[in-house]
Amino acid sequence: MQTLNVDLGDRSYPIHIGADLLSQPELLAPHIAGKQVLVVSNETVAPLYLETLKASLADYQVDTVVLPDGERYKTLETLNLIFDVALEKRHSRNTTLIALGGGVVGDMCGFAAAAYQRGVKFIQIPTTLLSQVDSSVGGKTGVNHALGKNMIGAFWQPQLVLADTTVLSTLPERELSAGIAEVIKYGLLGDAPFIDWLEDNMSALLAKDEAALTYAIHRSCQNKADVVARDEREGSVRAWLNLGHTFGHAIEHSLGYGEWLHGEAVGAGMVMAADMSARLGWISRADAERATQLIAAARLPIKAPSSMTEEQFLSAMAVDKKVLDGQLRLVLLKALGEAVVTADFEPSALLATINESLS
Amino acid sequence: MQTLNVDLGDRSYPIHIGADLLSQPELLAPHIAGKQVLVVSNETVAPLYLETLKASLADYQVDTVVLPDGERYKTLETLNLIFDVALEKRHSRNTTLIALGGGVVGDMCGFAAAAYQRGVKFIQIPTTLLSQVDSSVGGKTGVNHALGKNMIGAFWQPQLVLADTTVLSTLPERELSAGIAEVIKYGLLGDAPFIDWLEDNMSALLAKDEAALTYAIHRSCQNKADVVARDEREGSVRAWLNLGHTFGHAIEHSLGYGEWLHGEAVGAGMVMAADMSARLGWISRADAERATQLIAAARLPIKAPSSMTEEQFLSAMAVDKKVLDGQLRLVLLKALGEAVVTADFEPSALLATINESLS
Repeated sequence: MQTLNVDLGDRSYPIHIGADLLSQPELLAPHIAGKQVLVVSNETVAPLYLETLKASLADYQVDTVVLPDGERYKTLETLNLIFDVALEKRHSRNTTLIALGGGVVGDMCGFAAAAYQRGVKFIQIPTTLLSQVDSSVGGKTGVNHALGKNMIGAFWQPQLVLADTTVLSTLPERELSAGIAEVIKYGLLGDAPFIDWLEDNMSALLAKDEAALTYAIHRSCQNKADVVARDEREGSVRAWLNLGHTFGHAIEHSLGYGEWLHGEAVGAGMVMAADMSARLGWISRADAERATQLIAAARLPIKAPSSMTEEQFLSAMAVDKKVLDGQLRLVLLKALGEAVVTADFEPSALLATINESLS
Repeated sequence: MQTLNVDLGDRSYPIHIGADLLSQPELLAPHIAGKQVLVVSNETVAPLYLETLKASLADYQVDTVVLPDGERYKTLETLNLIFDVALEKRHSRNTTLIALGGGVVGDMCGFAAAAYQRGVKFIQIPTTLLSQVDSSVGGKTGVNHALGKNMIGAFWQPQLVLADTTVLSTLPERELSAGIAEVIKYGLLGDAPFIDWLEDNMSALLAKDEAALTYAIHRSCQNKADVVARDEREGSVRAWLNLGHTFGHAIEHSLGYGEWLHGEAVGAGMVMAADMSARLGWISRADAERATQLIAAARLPIKAPSSMTEEQFLSAMAVDKKVLDGQLRLVLLKALGEAVVTADFEPSALLATINESLS
């Protein structure tokens, strides 16, 4: 087991990473203040891992909420199901909420913890690679609104994150690759040596080798923690973490959310960011190609969906061709391993990148 | 105009108190960062004061949400109406929400500000005496759940509070008295000289004399701010602010919320707290009588509703007669002007106080 401490002053917390963590009660106990625990999971994950977790919580009053699985349930209405159980079972201000599931469960459970009785403690047990490297660090919680994703939420830090690599054994291959997309992102945006490591170890990651997974999760979380510690409430450098996301969101939005996995859209989006950075002369064409090959090696898409159009990209990115005046800010690459947020680019480069991805 | 600065480190903010503040744009401008403002009001207050406020916001994109009036609308569903407008009108993370109304509007607008895009700025313009002295300070925001009041929310501090005494001219007499209940509370719990002042100036307050109102609001907010600054997240002394509230909530709960105004229930509840403190020998019978007379002078009830029973009190206070073992913690008085939170009392004193109030 490796442990990473996320340094946020009096809101600091540890991330434990390794095999079989779920069945180790002594990892949980130091972070549960009261006698009550409310486990929030979903109908996919609960049948696999809820009993193991409950066995590690034998000393507490354990209540559970099993939510429907899927991004479309990440709403205020579903959130209320958590409050219903918390109140029915009389959970006090001293309770601890535990998220057992992927990003959706973590986001909702975290926001429920932020809002229940104006704030209670919570623990994250992410069960997908994506959520282990992404939502474990940063304290972003929330739900979607019909008019926008993640529009309602809070910054709320967990007491503890358990990233158990053993639970990844049941993760579908497509979701594994989607998680690796975010891992690659941390290399590209700020950690060139990690890019080398990923090139050497991609097959081990795809084979779910526990040592390789532990290393990749640790290094990704470390990279994210470094960015977040510098900018907890997203005033500046935290925007780097959106590398590939503006393009990726356009893909998700145009296809309908859920058609491609988020990480798949980010994969294709990062290829676009690298391509555009090369067009602007900031990185070499060889570097852009290297990034593309790494993304392809992770079995991720490197092109936008063939059904999409240039107009869909531009409208989803909230730019009209007539007013394409550089107001749009994108996360691009000044080098492999060095991200920059900029509105300083030729509109023609953006259009060329979109058309290349659609070709 | 008087100004009180609430000292909370980097979340400090001013409370301006006085006449005609709503029509002074220069009070608002320094606290609005962006170009967008979303005013949240209700159907009672908006027809009276929304236009005046909008005239003071001529330099901004002003959108408005007019909520139905009443505690029963203080729900997640109503909260979503605020998010609907914020998103339809494309309010960015740099927007400012402004609450124009009483406690319900302030609680909901504040929580909407805490949660919209994970937190935006907000300004409180409380339009009842109760909300001017109570919700202006402390940062408590939230909504009710079917299973409990204020169970979902956040601690979220405003940028500015405008306590405009002129708007109290349209406040119904019953609501004025309900606000004075909370004013009296600040005297009883920690400010003996203020009790003297209130005895001398009760008729001026009831006549809505602006100088008297300004003084009483300022001193109440100062008292609350002193307590909150010592204990922002309610670990310890902030519980003093619940003087009279455990009894009062039992009254509200048994009658059905809204039958008595909150301040009316707190008035009768403070009489009960004083009576019980006298029974325990902590204050003299003369002091308890003095508190009772002050509450009566504010035209507040000094007895519980005649329809209530001892059983209703005990069940609402979550104590069973068989297990009345002192676990219940009450805010009582060690002296007039000195509150204490204690579980150290004879059950017989509590029963005697309840029966005295019901007699």
